[in-house]
Amino acid sequence: MTSIYSPGSPILLPNGARIFNRLVDFLRKQYVRYGFQEVITPTIYKKALWAKSGHLDNYADDMYTVTGTSHLRTEVTEGGEEDEYGLKPMNCPGHCVIFASKKRSYRDLPIRYADFSPLHRNEISGALSGLTRVRRFHQDDGHIFCRPSQIADEISKTLDFVRLTYRVLGMGPYRLVLSTRPEKHIGSEWEWEQAEEALKKALGGSGHRFTINKGDGAFYGPKIDIILEDSDGKEHQTATIQLDFQLPKRFNLEYTAPAPHLEIRGETTEDPELLAEYGPVRPVLIHRAVLGSAERLMALLIERYNGKWPFWLNPRQAIIVTVNDQEPVVKWAHHMHRLFLGLPNESADHQPASHQQPASPTGLAVDFDDSPRTVGAKVAEAMAKGYGLIITVGPRDVAAKTVSVNASALSTGPVDNHGRVGGMERLTMTPEKA
Amino acid sequence: MTSIYSPGSPILLPNGARIFNRLVDFLRKQYVRYGFQEVITPTIYKKALWAKSGHLDNYADDMYTVTGTSHLRTEVTEGGEEDEYGLKPMNCPGHCVIFASKKRSYRDLPIRYADFSPLHRNEISGALSGLTRVRRFHQDDGHIFCRPSQIADEISKTLDFVRLTYRVLGMGPYRLVLSTRPEKHIGSEWEWEQAEEALKKALGGSGHRFTINKGDGAFYGPKIDIILEDSDGKEHQTATIQLDFQLPKRFNLEYTAPAPHLEIRGETTEDPELLAEYGPVRPVLIHRAVLGSAERLMALLIERYNGKWPFWLNPRQAIIVTVNDQEPVVKWAHHMHRLFLGLPNESADHQPASHQQPASPTGLAVDFDDSPRTVGAKVAEAMAKGYGLIITVGPRDVAAKTVSVNASALSTGPVDNHGRVGGMERLTMTPEKA
Ligand SMILES: [Zn+2]
Ligand SMILES: [Zn+2]
Repeated sequence: MTSIYSPGSPILLPNGARIFNRLVDFLRKQYVRYGFQEVITPTIYKKALWAKSGHLDNYADDMYTVTGTSHLRTEVTEGGEEDEYGLKPMNCPGHCVIFASKKRSYRDLPIRYADFSPLHRNEISGALSGLTRVRRFHQDDGHIFCRPSQIADEISKTLDFVRLTYRVLGMGPYRLVLSTRPEKHIGSEWEWEQAEEALKKALGGSGHRFTINKGDGAFYGPKIDIILEDSDGKEHQTATIQLDFQLPKRFNLEYTAPAPHLEIRGETTEDPELLAEYGPVRPVLIHRAVLGSAERLMALLIERYNGKWPFWLNPRQAIIVTVNDQEPVVKWAHHMHRLFLGLPNESADHQPASHQQPASPTGLAVDFDDSPRTVGAKVAEAMAKGYGLIITVGPRDVAAKTVSVNASALSTGPVDNHGRVGGMERLTMTPEKA
Repeated sequence: MTSIYSPGSPILLPNGARIFNRLVDFLRKQYVRYGFQEVITPTIYKKALWAKSGHLDNYADDMYTVTGTSHLRTEVTEGGEEDEYGLKPMNCPGHCVIFASKKRSYRDLPIRYADFSPLHRNEISGALSGLTRVRRFHQDDGHIFCRPSQIADEISKTLDFVRLTYRVLGMGPYRLVLSTRPEKHIGSEWEWEQAEEALKKALGGSGHRFTINKGDGAFYGPKIDIILEDSDGKEHQTATIQLDFQLPKRFNLEYTAPAPHLEIRGETTEDPELLAEYGPVRPVLIHRAVLGSAERLMALLIERYNGKWPFWLNPRQAIIVTVNDQEPVVKWAHHMHRLFLGLPNESADHQPASHQQPASPTGLAVDFDDSPRTVGAKVAEAMAKGYGLIITVGPRDVAAKTVSVNASALSTGPVDNHGRVGGMERLTMTPEKA
């Protein structure tokens, strides 16, 4: 929902938050494989940071300024100026600050930081719309700090990650676009050539068709855009992979490596004399987001699935519906509800609090409907709402210690990522476990 | 770490983020049991919201104001004023907006919203310190909207939740303090008496000692503070449970119920004539946080465990250390690393990307050290760093397909919440699985 009090900042209600958290959970699991480390970074940084990063010069129109509401708490800095903060539109400067906080060796690289922080960009209000044109959003943001020789491999892995993710989400097809050196640019011709070659090599190796937008790169580095096609054939730019020669310079980032003059060119040597020399080298920074804006991707998923969610993403995975409101039925239904949720028996709640054990639920989203309506009306409503499993409980179920499962609406989607459907069936078929 | 660019906004590096995410994960699991629904809400709200909630009148000194950095994007509202936002110091007004967005019936209550949003409060800079006195923090915030008759039960459950959580975290003892009606207050004597009676009843039923701070409640409602004692006997106020008569009025919150005049007094009836009358009733709002500030609680945990973390919270659960840098040793060590992380075989990475399966890792934090140092030096460093399991791999392990596990530093803590140690031992003892 949106509120008049927060235009452009969507509110995720429980079902939206479930989808959001499942996407984050999926990505966190893949981060173990792709070597990303999650960090949690500030929302506001002093203007001095945004001056250093270049955002104040190039991005101020899209930013928000933060100041103390009361002048009683205003700080005076050394320069005698008022204390002003920028509300972050991007995580990169914060991640550069973390990289720069320690001495780094070539052995530490690549270092890959991931961050799910909310970001704010000041879109003009006329452009705001639902989940797609917003002022506050979450990116599945990541920054890779690597050696020049590692660029191609990092881009390859990122392209694999993108491919895996869109396949699991059932989204696509997409096409890849490489944008190369524009006329106005920083960095040497040599750096650009090296970087563009690495990107082309990775794109070629991905087995995915790609096109080149000559001269369309950012002034600070070449990039790859992932352009997703929706069911209507409309294109959406979602994921990006952006090389950056600028921020490492602005933040004076470096690591030490042997044979630094070769290292900076992405070359290695066996020559012991050259290897004996250690020196500082500027790392390459790669910005990348796989989903892009999580909110916008959710909008695309909502459109794509139109209520028929694959089971693992469905915010309405199951509902337990009572056939009538007789006490034994409602009681057995409640009991089964706890079983599906993975909660301990009711009796556990009546133990003294000092003996209660932490819950370790299944993670299934199971709702409950014992409202005094006909079972037909309740099941029809559950169908219309897109529940994956509709579980009815009636007098016969109480006697036989069963439930009746209607799985006709079940959609496991392109990849059943969590194997949960299997777990569910087991639970259902062995109610004696209860 | 903290940065000069973000005073009062701690940066959580990968190990800090791990602990933070484990705390959130633990709470989310308990939310299934205690019936909380997570929502994700905006960071900035228009000043009009903070006027309505009373924060602008009573809390402005502690707040930050947000405006567009460039005047080109400044909105003009109907009143002709500039568009100004407040950076949220609390989630309550946002949750009231969600409650008010729909018609609510007595059958829907209690509604319990949870929110892990970052919050900002403008502390004067002299007071800032590490994780304890900060400007940006995360609360495990929750708001319960309930019927007057449900107060005692909701407070009881919250006290159970608090007790469970501090036991699992191994923190305590703590004491409970009930603060009652101050001279200056809103709400009728009757409402206060009813609320205080409900709180006393819940406190009595908790079996936990409590004291009363007479007249020390907030003007808008009585509260219970949880005062934790640390190992030095120093006291810290962490969790709170606060009743609120004010915000439901300011936001004009209501639900419909039969016999509204009895409902508002927390009473029920069987009289069909009275039950036939439906009308609006103001819900009771309970603010509650179990950890309080997650950052401050992390500081208390760090002090409490002093590097000897219980296994489930340990950001350094295990490390794999090579005995030498021979290729077969390093290769087997890498293989075992993937096994402990729960990643697919290396061969899976060499499959075409289109065939790769999503990772479903164990969730264990397993580091890797194949640096060219003696195994003694590496193990000593791992011990000093507080790793729970130190797993060495040498030539004999390669031949026998084993690893050597040093679990002497393992601490399962007061409650092994996740049963992971067991899983770990299984993994280790059956390396033929590899
Ligand atoms: Zn970036
Ligand atoms: Zn609150």
